[in-house]
Amino acid sequence: MQHFASDNYAGICPEALAALQAANAGHAPAYGEDEWTQRVSDRLRDLFETDCDVYFVFNGTAANSLALASLCQSYQSVICHEIAHVDTDECGAPEFFSNGSKLLPARGDNGKLTVDAVRELITRRDDIHYPRPRALTLTQATEVGTLYRPDEIAALADLAHRHGLHMHMDGARFANATASLGLAPAEFTWRAGVDVLCFGGTKMGLPVGEAVVFFDRKLSEDFAWRCKQAGQLASKMRFLSAPWLGMLEDGAWLRHAAHANAMAQRLAAGLQGISGIRLLFEVQANGVFCSLPAPVMTGLRERGWRFYTFIGTDGARFMCGWDTLPESVDALLADIRALAR
Amino acid sequence: MQHFASDNYAGICPEALAALQAANAGHAPAYGEDEWTQRVSDRLRDLFETDCDVYFVFNGTAANSLALASLCQSYQSVICHEIAHVDTDECGAPEFFSNGSKLLPARGDNGKLTVDAVRELITRRDDIHYPRPRALTLTQATEVGTLYRPDEIAALADLAHRHGLHMHMDGARFANATASLGLAPAEFTWRAGVDVLCFGGTKMGLPVGEAVVFFDRKLSEDFAWRCKQAGQLASKMRFLSAPWLGMLEDGAWLRHAAHANAMAQRLAAGLQGISGIRLLFEVQANGVFCSLPAPVMTGLRERGWRFYTFIGTDGARFMCGWDTLPESVDALLADIRALAR
Amino acid sequence: MQHFASDNYAGICPEALAALQAANAGHAPAYGEDEWTQRVSDRLRDLFETDCDVYFVFNGTAANSLALASLCQSYQSVICHEIAHVDTDECGAPEFFSNGSKLLPARGDNGKLTVDAVRELITRRDDIHYPRPRALTLTQATEVGTLYRPDEIAALADLAHRHGLHMHMDGARFANATASLGLAPAEFTWRAGVDVLCFGGTKMGLPVGEAVVFFDRKLSEDFAWRCKQAGQLASKMRFLSAPWLGMLEDGAWLRHAAHANAMAQRLAAGLQGISGIRLLFEVQANGVFCSLPAPVMTGLRERGWRFYTFIGTDGARFMCGWDTLPESVDALLADIRALAR
Amino acid sequence: MQHFASDNYAGICPEALAALQAANAGHAPAYGEDEWTQRVSDRLRDLFETDCDVYFVFNGTAANSLALASLCQSYQSVICHEIAHVDTDECGAPEFFSNGSKLLPARGDNGKLTVDAVRELITRRDDIHYPRPRALTLTQATEVGTLYRPDEIAALADLAHRHGLHMHMDGARFANATASLGLAPAEFTWRAGVDVLCFGGTKMGLPVGEAVVFFDRKLSEDFAWRCKQAGQLASKMRFLSAPWLGMLEDGAWLRHAAHANAMAQRLAAGLQGISGIRLLFEVQANGVFCSLPAPVMTGLRERGWRFYTFIGTDGARFMCGWDTLPESVDALLADIRALAR
Repeated sequence: MQHFASDNYAGICPEALAALQAANAGHAPAYGEDEWTQRVSDRLRDLFETDCDVYFVFNGTAANSLALASLCQSYQSVICHEIAHVDTDECGAPEFFSNGSKLLPARGDNGKLTVDAVRELITRRDDIHYPRPRALTLTQATEVGTLYRPDEIAALADLAHRHGLHMHMDGARFANATASLGLAPAEFTWRAGVDVLCFGGTKMGLPVGEAVVFFDRKLSEDFAWRCKQAGQLASKMRFLSAPWLGMLEDGAWLRHAAHANAMAQRLAAGLQGISGIRLLFEVQANGVFCSLPAPVMTGLRERGWRFYTFIGTDGARFMCGWDTLPESVDALLADIRALAR
Repeated sequence: MQHFASDNYAGICPEALAALQAANAGHAPAYGEDEWTQRVSDRLRDLFETDCDVYFVFNGTAANSLALASLCQSYQSVICHEIAHVDTDECGAPEFFSNGSKLLPARGDNGKLTVDAVRELITRRDDIHYPRPRALTLTQATEVGTLYRPDEIAALADLAHRHGLHMHMDGARFANATASLGLAPAEFTWRAGVDVLCFGGTKMGLPVGEAVVFFDRKLSEDFAWRCKQAGQLASKMRFLSAPWLGMLEDGAWLRHAAHANAMAQRLAAGLQGISGIRLLFEVQANGVFCSLPAPVMTGLRERGWRFYTFIGTDGARFMCGWDTLPESVDALLADIRALAR
Repeated sequence: MQHFASDNYAGICPEALAALQAANAGHAPAYGEDEWTQRVSDRLRDLFETDCDVYFVFNGTAANSLALASLCQSYQSVICHEIAHVDTDECGAPEFFSNGSKLLPARGDNGKLTVDAVRELITRRDDIHYPRPRALTLTQATEVGTLYRPDEIAALADLAHRHGLHMHMDGARFANATASLGLAPAEFTWRAGVDVLCFGGTKMGLPVGEAVVFFDRKLSEDFAWRCKQAGQLASKMRFLSAPWLGMLEDGAWLRHAAHANAMAQRLAAGLQGISGIRLLFEVQANGVFCSLPAPVMTGLRERGWRFYTFIGTDGARFMCGWDTLPESVDALLADIRALAR
Repeated sequence: MQHFASDNYAGICPEALAALQAANAGHAPAYGEDEWTQRVSDRLRDLFETDCDVYFVFNGTAANSLALASLCQSYQSVICHEIAHVDTDECGAPEFFSNGSKLLPARGDNGKLTVDAVRELITRRDDIHYPRPRALTLTQATEVGTLYRPDEIAALADLAHRHGLHMHMDGARFANATASLGLAPAEFTWRAGVDVLCFGGTKMGLPVGEAVVFFDRKLSEDFAWRCKQAGQLASKMRFLSAPWLGMLEDGAWLRHAAHANAMAQRLAAGLQGISGIRLLFEVQANGVFCSLPAPVMTGLRERGWRFYTFIGTDGARFMCGWDTLPESVDALLADIRALAR
């Protein structure tokens, strides 16, 4: 039975597994000195159409925390959305890696930061008792499955840069965002002013690992040492990097992401026909958030479905993955319909 | 061409890869709630013949640093051997994870701590300006390929516990040690007084990941939260844990380790016949350390061999892995003989 | 000219200075081994009518941060009011000293935490991605000059202890609170469930230094080492501790605090007679918060008065100190009246 | 009775106390915005004959740790002498403030670093597992009462700068060094290549506080925020800074230091006449280190004298302060003579 609790429930997609197996041939230098790591890094530079610095770390917690730590000192701060994963679901990881950089949460509809809310936090105070904002982070796709348009990102980046902040993008679901926007990755990253991107690999279909992509290469100085000290340097790096080759080969990563997005659309369409159920956010990526009557929630769980309630609302979160089957979506919908009667 | 630079140059052994592929079936709960992680943990409890707590993290840097951080506060210290990997090759990781716990290096022949050297550091001072020793760490097999006998470990553990220190074992090459000692793992871990073991998986043949085994379960309180905050909680945990199943199945881990040890013996035996070359340490695991005339070193590198010089001596380090072929050993020996003439 | 910007603008009160000078006789052991430190600690134990552990540190930032760091691990969290000084004005110090413990802000009228708001944060989640609340901190007197009654503190402490949280009190203005409540300090600290109190000395009239008072002595284990490592152990400790002797002698600390409170009452009474000006909070200690028309604010600054605007409102904050003169209050009132016409 | 255990046993010298009292007049802005802090900073700029940045912190632990933290990242390292106070007596403070920067101890006679020993540590390795040296710290006067000549400092600074390291001087006894060398402070600090100096105030005769002097002003960027977050920003800063005015007025600081040095010479001269006692280091500042027969040590303690044994030898350390009386020195010598018979 497939679940909608998290896109982490899915396994390794075929292209990634094949590449991992292909990389398992003979001896290879450790710690990233191998050919696979080199090749994937070049492919990512091709993908982003620029000469960026690329590093591979083990998970998203570390990718975002290390990236943010490289952007600000312990006595400075990071502006994020109040429902940003880095603030709500990392158990203090950004503060741990940075040795105390504060996260300053800002409000904004649909999980998206607004220029006004960010400006208020930047300009509010300038005294020594306030940790000066030095980085701005946004999540693309957002935690509620919405997307920033390139112009929205550019406006935030412009504001950030004018005030000396660096621009970070949490791309745990960057593939879903790219597939949905139908734009070249460069259009809504560095061309829009993003300095550092954490490109999510795990949710996309890899076994383990994310890529940290520095478009502003000055910011990546010594990043390899930072990763090493923080326990994020893989000895057999090829097994973190090689799977990316399979994903990037003939657009597999976008095909899988587009499929997950389509399953979310299928689910959303089905839900809209059911009385008493309301979509909480526009479905722009692979997540569907809707209000569910308590009895329906209970009933679904009794029937074995796993999913998260959406903190702070009576809502439910349904995530679709690269392997979500139409039959699974339809089965879920059928149960919701039955319970909603 | 195979190399002797590091046992990290080897790939994934067949049993581990098969288990990883077997685990790649359908959906599984994330963050360690899956069946594979549960089963491997039980198997490890069987292996150690005790009800220990087991956690899987991404690499050895994190395994050792998180384990030590859970044993002492930032203002306390950890006693280690002066050539201990945690002190010489982790770029300050233990200090980073613990937020400042100092490592106090002790001398000792053959890379092994002595009771006298450790006692001196424990009893030297008791003033507030000295970080009180709270943990003792030893490496089994040591960084120079030697082994602690169970009675040696027991003597150190007894000293440590009498003074309120916890006992940690860095088992990056625990498999090689076990295969060489021919003892049940329990004999030279918890029965000898070890409180926490970092059981190395990568060098043993896994793609990624180590196990942190708490024999003193009081010490593992909240360890899962510690791992999460430090970026060491894998979302698709099954791909870290499942490969262990393959390794532990009918003793594959020991077969591979025994083979690596045998290759080291083969190399050592061959070296002893060559004039001008001297073994620096008794070969008890999978590493061979010997003095090499400078021209021989240069010559080997010119012929494409990769290996490390042994810091502080005119020596060379040759590591054998689970996949090292007798032909590779013989080819290396042939080149050394030719160059030594 | 006296100012109302901060009670830190005042100098050293006579009793404290006299005690400092008296302590400046001959040689004394360093790092707190001196007789003065011993005597003050005993006097504080008398004052609190219990056998508490007492430590002296340099300032309030360190006192609160070190106390909180001793109450929770880096992967745990601290619940505080959303306008708590530890969250809004310490530039990330609590996160720095604890290596990442998150502060979870709760709402509440009049700068005071409510049982419901705290319970919601404690019980909201119990998953591994959420830093478990391990400490609760309240400020007495609060940042807006209000006070917690003993029963309010007891209710919060009871809730905290039932859920395994430790109870911390930020007493930067503990003297003002005590003078205003007219109760024995024990009544609204340990008898009400407070585990650790940071007793403010500087604002009270000392040149430098605060006292950290552990009522739950188990929590102070190794606190001296924690202070040392964090740069908070004074070598000539007697000059931090001795001034407390003068303050505690025949209740000087309460006389001064009562005077500051009275000056705040005098100011508040005067303001209430002025149209267009409204008190924002009940004046229960030494701070007066009121709304001021923009022209009045500007006018006051033009006339040389220093004071802070109250973040987030059109309000002004006026703080009275141990040395604030009635004439200064009246002069401020006269200017406000003149400007308000 | 006066002691020779530490120059921290002495109280506040008259000039410092007078200045502290003078500063205790009326209201003054907090956090260093006061006139006294401004004036002392200017006086220090005059003293050093350069436009340096000056900050006042509470103690030497913090001064050195914050200065070093501003010179290197957590994954980098600091080279120091193996008996440097920052490594042996700060309970891990430098590692705590820097979040893990490793201290790399180097050998050297008379407590002084040598160019060869430092070069070896800088050039030993350049791999990612080794924390790259980024700062060099030396202590002037050294922990064993010896001094670096300007040319020795220049040679170390030149080496450091050629390899991208910053140069830090721990000047806990900078006054004693200056008085003994008879040179302008500029000569053996910035003109010799020192980038940051921690100028010790407490041992010199202040109640509390040290000055951090940045000769390379680029390195002090945001240092005020760093101090604030680390709990080292004094609210009533004038009481930390003003006492310096008294010390710097007509060279009081040098007179007191010269007196302490003279007392050390008097003690050393007396000791040389006693058989069985040997000076361990040349007496160049205010500390005397000598070998003492065990019975003499015991006897002295029985007669009430307080002093430290010198770790790692059968030696004793006698420190002289600004207030040490000739009579005290003679009384100590008399007892030693009596016991040595």
